[in-house]
Amino acid sequence: MWGMIATWRMALEGVTKGAGMLEQGADAGDAVEAAIREVEDFPYYKSVGYGGLPNEDMEVELDAAYMDGDTLDVGAVAAIRDYANPVSIARRLSREKVNSVLVGEGAERFAHKEGFERKNMLTDRAKAFYRKRKKEDEQELRPYAGHDTVGMVCLDCKGKMTAATSTSGLFMKKKGRVGDSPIVGSGFYADSKVGGASATGLGEDLMKGCISYEIVRLMKEGLHPQEACERAVGLLDRELKERRGKAGDLSLIAMNNKGEWGVATNIQGFSFAVASWGEEPKVYLVTPGEDSRCTFEEASQEWMEDYMRTRMAPVEE
Amino acid sequence: MWGMIATWRMALEGVTKGAGMLEQGADAGDAVEAAIREVEDFPYYKSVGYGGLPNEDMEVELDAAYMDGDTLDVGAVAAIRDYANPVSIARRLSREKVNSVLVGEGAERFAHKEGFERKNMLTDRAKAFYRKRKKEDEQELRPYAGHDTVGMVCLDCKGKMTAATSTSGLFMKKKGRVGDSPIVGSGFYADSKVGGASATGLGEDLMKGCISYEIVRLMKEGLHPQEACERAVGLLDRELKERRGKAGDLSLIAMNNKGEWGVATNIQGFSFAVASWGEEPKVYLVTPGEDSRCTFEEASQEWMEDYMRTRMAPVEE
Repeated sequence: MWGMIATWRMALEGVTKGAGMLEQGADAGDAVEAAIREVEDFPYYKSVGYGGLPNEDMEVELDAAYMDGDTLDVGAVAAIRDYANPVSIARRLSREKVNSVLVGEGAERFAHKEGFERKNMLTDRAKAFYRKRKKEDEQELRPYAGHDTVGMVCLDCKGKMTAATSTSGLFMKKKGRVGDSPIVGSGFYADSKVGGASATGLGEDLMKGCISYEIVRLMKEGLHPQEACERAVGLLDRELKERRGKAGDLSLIAMNNKGEWGVATNIQGFSFAVASWGEEPKVYLVTPGEDSRCTFEEASQEWMEDYMRTRMAPVEE
Repeated sequence: MWGMIATWRMALEGVTKGAGMLEQGADAGDAVEAAIREVEDFPYYKSVGYGGLPNEDMEVELDAAYMDGDTLDVGAVAAIRDYANPVSIARRLSREKVNSVLVGEGAERFAHKEGFERKNMLTDRAKAFYRKRKKEDEQELRPYAGHDTVGMVCLDCKGKMTAATSTSGLFMKKKGRVGDSPIVGSGFYADSKVGGASATGLGEDLMKGCISYEIVRLMKEGLHPQEACERAVGLLDRELKERRGKAGDLSLIAMNNKGEWGVATNIQGFSFAVASWGEEPKVYLVTPGEDSRCTFEEASQEWMEDYMRTRMAPVEE
């Protein structure tokens, strides 16, 4: 028994790779790291790793995290520049008893000492998006339409669970801005005794509900991952609207230690990728409905082709 | 009805100031900010604000956070250098809809633009501690004996609750290291519909249980703050020992929106300060007992005098 679930269509190639490893008996830590690296390395995903869109200074500042559900080890980096695979640095940090969450220059120095290679993460394509946005009117900062943080939960044959995230954060964010992705309990949480969850959307709102922790907790109470995701997203969405007039984008994925999974969102257009011992890697599209209930269906061939065409289309400046 | 509770003896002067304001009808945000600033400004507290002990590069890197329990607004700074009152920067950030958690140089730039004044936070006394430690053998990094993060929860006459934290983090930490203090759900959480909680101890372990959020959640289920603190600390302590062989220092304070409060710890020597409409500002000492039960008694006059004498004693190099 094994499984892997991840936010957004962009995770598919990574999930396919991780699933292949898990099927061969790989460790949940190795599989989730390899899967996230796949997304980080792909230059056309503009919210994760290489090709990620820059902050207002035209710097690509990256956030990533890793959690081991057996030991509860957590490692994270935030606002780190110019390393190809922040998730691997986060995983390396998770083995430290102290100093396991590092930000900015300190994170870069750690990565350098540990032998991670520098890489200029700003692509010509990302620069074109930056120049284009600069010419447009001031816009409200918001999560990317269609894909932002990649967050994954993984279960291996031995019952070990892990969670990991990676993102370049909001396009045009302020220097040093940190969202939910590197924040334990908000962007991710994993406990092998129960399950794991991971988030994508508006970090500033996701963290107001410690939503990944809350979903794992609901699963601990016995809820199915689908029910846990719907209840947590529904509650936070209502609280934010009641107290603040509106709620930012909240999209969650979860898996329990039986390999059952669930998703919930308060937006149109959320997609996710999943694979398990009984299920080939697939992409689903989610539709939020009444009472926070969400339905999903497999993405059509047409949708999949259109997705990749859009990602790789030239940037019209 | 109003109240304020805070970690460690060092919070007493701040709590006294905040209590005076709350009694006059002040807002919970103003009171908690003023109370934390008092601790940040006192040069003899070596783990918060001015006089805080430096990282391994002899830089004082500060973390602070603020949460408004009405709106769930969160603001935080991490690894910020050379500003006198990080809690005020965090509170200012909490009013931003996005970019409300900033780290390192980005946080400093924001503070500068907002008119906060630079201050060299490294005192001669802190330098003496640094030189002394450098001469000693390598030691395991651990929370300061007797006082580290100041964390507070506040309830005002209108029923608004806030939580805030401030710390210079572990002495000799790696550059860029972030503990639980600026991390919502781990170092602090507040919801005016329920209550608030704040943590001090080993940040890397506190965050493994999202413990401040968990305590507020237990209070939401109807538990008294004392019961909520004991249950959450007991559970995390057991899980860490079972999975990792040992648990770091975990000390928590909480207050609900009826002004009832509670504390729990897994260490000897934890002190806290509390004041409310029915109770003059006082310092208590906590003793952990069987089954995670904690007892506390008011600090004696002798203990109080000894405390301040120790804090202000010359540093023997």
